[in-house]
Amino acid sequence: MGKLRFNVSMSLDGYIAGPNQSLENPLGEGGENLHDWVIKLKFFREMHGDRGGGETGTNDDVLRENFENLGATIMGRNMFGGGPGPWGNWEWKGWWGDNPPFHTPVFVLTHHPREPLVMQGGTTFFFVTDGIESALKQARDAAGGKDVALGGGASVAQQYVAAGLMDEMELHVVPILLGGGERLFDNLAGSDVRVEPVRVVETPEVTHLKYRVVKS
Amino acid sequence: MGKLRFNVSMSLDGYIAGPNQSLENPLGEGGENLHDWVIKLKFFREMHGDRGGGETGTNDDVLRENFENLGATIMGRNMFGGGPGPWGNWEWKGWWGDNPPFHTPVFVLTHHPREPLVMQGGTTFFFVTDGIESALKQARDAAGGKDVALGGGASVAQQYVAAGLMDEMELHVVPILLGGGERLFDNLAGSDVRVEPVRVVETPEVTHLKYRVVKS
Repeated sequence: MGKLRFNVSMSLDGYIAGPNQSLENPLGEGGENLHDWVIKLKFFREMHGDRGGGETGTNDDVLRENFENLGATIMGRNMFGGGPGPWGNWEWKGWWGDNPPFHTPVFVLTHHPREPLVMQGGTTFFFVTDGIESALKQARDAAGGKDVALGGGASVAQQYVAAGLMDEMELHVVPILLGGGERLFDNLAGSDVRVEPVRVVETPEVTHLKYRVVKS
Repeated sequence: MGKLRFNVSMSLDGYIAGPNQSLENPLGEGGENLHDWVIKLKFFREMHGDRGGGETGTNDDVLRENFENLGATIMGRNMFGGGPGPWGNWEWKGWWGDNPPFHTPVFVLTHHPREPLVMQGGTTFFFVTDGIESALKQARDAAGGKDVALGGGASVAQQYVAAGLMDEMELHVVPILLGGGERLFDNLAGSDVRVEPVRVVETPEVTHLKYRVVKS
């Protein structure tokens, strides 16, 4: 059975988005700096359909590895965006244009049923209304033995960690202090999971910390 | 002029003490696990006056380096403990017995004036009532060109970081999730400091992340 894996860029003070997130600024103030190391990489450009250029090297290798052997993706409602509510509407197809960078079935956790949304490049969004365990089961079925990526955001990651369903996390620790925003690690009181270091990779721009998550 | 340096053990979810800290349990629930990697080390035992045994190796080297070239120490009121208030009294001499492990002048930030307290082994506690900049100046004067250690806790560390007065931080990231407690990084909104990675050292028990702190 494939692993559930999560990788995310986090500030040194533990935030994966800055303060005052909004429709115009979904990453919050300063949050875009979390991704400076990513967007210049060759693999990032390939994922987004740009085959020309980009940096190779250690960070590119790590990012590439994060997306190897993935058969499905899970994400939370805020990461997908849209739906009823102040931010969105039913025409909403995500933030990523016609050819999203997932290239797998994507299971979006939501309270609102919606027909699957077929995009270009192998991405289909499925909307799951019956909880994180159901989403994981559907994603594993779709993944056909490959791993499942948790796309985010923090709230969903916390739920999978607290439930002991996360298998592996790689934190890309970016040397910035955001001073506020959305914390990756929160709401984990009473959780009985443990983490075990798998490996550390250091570059000047970012420190990659990979952990195995183990249910006690 | 010597650097102001801070090293601290932090859980993966960003806590330097667990939830429900009390006089009986100053590190909070689960907080003692933050220090499992430390207390078995040869250098830790030496600091505490026990010359027999203890583990050597990478973690011991890192800890030893943290305490090299130090001429003075600064700490917050809660780390020292005591003083007027529900937890303490004026007879209080700190948590560390007659021969505290600092072996330098220690400047304790407090709102309550008190005469200096001379301990064994080179530690004298001085009580500073006029703020973090004064404490740093007094510590630097006492250090005679050597570095100054910030002993803790989190609140004082945050104040020095936010004020742009911290020079170097080493975070010993322990692979545990405490789920609550005292966060190292908090109350830094609006701070204009940046951090730059200095080096990473990885062991199975703990990942040591050292950063330079730079005022923007």
